[in-house]
Amino acid sequence: MRHHGLRLLVMALAVTGALGAATPKDRATYRRPQAIPAPADNAPLPARVALGKMLFFDPRLSGSGWISCASCHNPAFDWTDGLPTALGDGMNRLPRATPTLVNVAYDTIFMWDGRAPTLEAQALGPITAKGEMDQNLDSLVSKLRSIAGYRALFARAYPNEPISGTTVAKAIASFERTLVATESPFDRWLDGDDAAMSDSAQRGFALFKGKAQCATCHEGFNFTDNGFHNIGVKTLPGGKPDIGRYAQRPVKSMKGAFKTPTLRDVALTAPYMHNGAYTTLAEVIDHYDRGGGDADDLDPNMKPLHLTAREKRDLVAFLRSLTGAPRAVTVPQLPQ
Amino acid sequence: MRHHGLRLLVMALAVTGALGAATPKDRATYRRPQAIPAPADNAPLPARVALGKMLFFDPRLSGSGWISCASCHNPAFDWTDGLPTALGDGMNRLPRATPTLVNVAYDTIFMWDGRAPTLEAQALGPITAKGEMDQNLDSLVSKLRSIAGYRALFARAYPNEPISGTTVAKAIASFERTLVATESPFDRWLDGDDAAMSDSAQRGFALFKGKAQCATCHEGFNFTDNGFHNIGVKTLPGGKPDIGRYAQRPVKSMKGAFKTPTLRDVALTAPYMHNGAYTTLAEVIDHYDRGGGDADDLDPNMKPLHLTAREKRDLVAFLRSLTGAPRAVTVPQLPQ
Repeated sequence: MRHHGLRLLVMALAVTGALGAATPKDRATYRRPQAIPAPADNAPLPARVALGKMLFFDPRLSGSGWISCASCHNPAFDWTDGLPTALGDGMNRLPRATPTLVNVAYDTIFMWDGRAPTLEAQALGPITAKGEMDQNLDSLVSKLRSIAGYRALFARAYPNEPISGTTVAKAIASFERTLVATESPFDRWLDGDDAAMSDSAQRGFALFKGKAQCATCHEGFNFTDNGFHNIGVKTLPGGKPDIGRYAQRPVKSMKGAFKTPTLRDVALTAPYMHNGAYTTLAEVIDHYDRGGGDADDLDPNMKPLHLTAREKRDLVAFLRSLTGAPRAVTVPQLPQ
Repeated sequence: MRHHGLRLLVMALAVTGALGAATPKDRATYRRPQAIPAPADNAPLPARVALGKMLFFDPRLSGSGWISCASCHNPAFDWTDGLPTALGDGMNRLPRATPTLVNVAYDTIFMWDGRAPTLEAQALGPITAKGEMDQNLDSLVSKLRSIAGYRALFARAYPNEPISGTTVAKAIASFERTLVATESPFDRWLDGDDAAMSDSAQRGFALFKGKAQCATCHEGFNFTDNGFHNIGVKTLPGGKPDIGRYAQRPVKSMKGAFKTPTLRDVALTAPYMHNGAYTTLAEVIDHYDRGGGDADDLDPNMKPLHLTAREKRDLVAFLRSLTGAPRAVTVPQLPQ
């Protein structure tokens, strides 16, 4: 009898989504996929990943010979830089924040304004941008061709293609696709370990999907709709108004709209927002609680949330539960 | 009989130091020590090494928040940067090259001009130098004290000392002392594996100790006398004459004198000399073969060597045999 009652209770909790267990719907929505997508012409062969990792860590990819992809997408900071906005060549400050690369394999559009349609297309952007790595692509290709170690690695990775901007980008993208989020307390909880998330984090998850409406844009296992929204982030002192996605897609709703970032590992990737306006997750929640400020072209979903202090804490606890286990990243020794 | 003849041959080779086997004297001179020295007040406890590694990789140690020790002492380039001379804050070019940190534990004086007497004293130099990491030490200490993760790590590493410039330096030095050279073909050859070095490299070793007189300054297992010599390296276009050690010790013989660097891993640490004047080891050998140029205060040991082309190749082959096996360096995840 007692056993039967317990089963009923468990079923009731499963149906209502109350504390203690993930529902089948949660699992269907938030479970991480097994496969990592990759383009048909760039299957993630180990030789490509290994080459891409070397290129990613190689400062010779920059004009100065000092800045590598890893200088800003720093594995010590979960593939971002810990700065409000990025620094580039000459250490000049750039207008937008360095996004993490965690789960970039699952993105369907790239850059804060979505100007790159593929990870391969994205990879060459910062390398060649004057204010970022300031590298001339022809010089880079010549340099790589002059290094015997790279010649061998490219030949193994892309035997039917020359060393070129295309193969550099393909290799880097192949490495970046390996940077998938590691298992977090939230994932363990989804998989049936009811104790993996605190009660507060579990309440936070319910708020995330419900009252706080976070899941409207931060949807699915990667917590992004790959869409663009103006959420009313303030322009920082010294910053210029940033039209965001509008530069690529000049419709009113895209003015000041930026790409929805993943929330995987979000506790590790402060500061937050496209311009690093907030230092803590609590400030981010406050921003949404206010309805996002008084921007002209605010996303229609942005409304004051009237969260209690406890609800705000619960949301932060949930966001913290999305932190994956530490990943051991070894630095490649670069060919001379 | 045949066996007896072979033994006699081996003995003869051992006595003459001819090709094929290291002599007892070679082993006494060049075998790597088992122990790593450390100051009495900074024993290399694992908690200190782990903390020091985090600090070493943490760009928050710089004023900009972008430059870490590892930005220039880059593990991807065997703890140097692959540049002729270093870049610092604002990516301004500095006058001297970034030295590798390999075997720095065994050095007895630090910096190209020997201005730091200990590794602990050295560590704070680049952090606080305006042109390098440009950090204010008080700001750094406040920042570190504000990070809960670091508070815990410092408490474990230095339980009886506060977080301070002193403990920052001690921890970084503790990490750096772990960067000992890994086993090279030369070491295997010393240990009796006669085939570990090519004949050319073995001939190069004989030249190194003999005709080429390299071992006069590049002495012992770490291939340095920890001394300072003017070897007549040319001032590069755009560079200024560099008085080197003379700034610390104003005697004539120290004018333009720089510290003898280790040759461990030298094949991995191009370009060469205190100002990166040479790109290849062959150019370095040519420099010494010329007797080092026509500097006024040249070290009296610098004389033309009259090496043949084959002897030069043999010396390069020997230098290449000092390359240690690749070391797996993992990037620490930094506390937020």
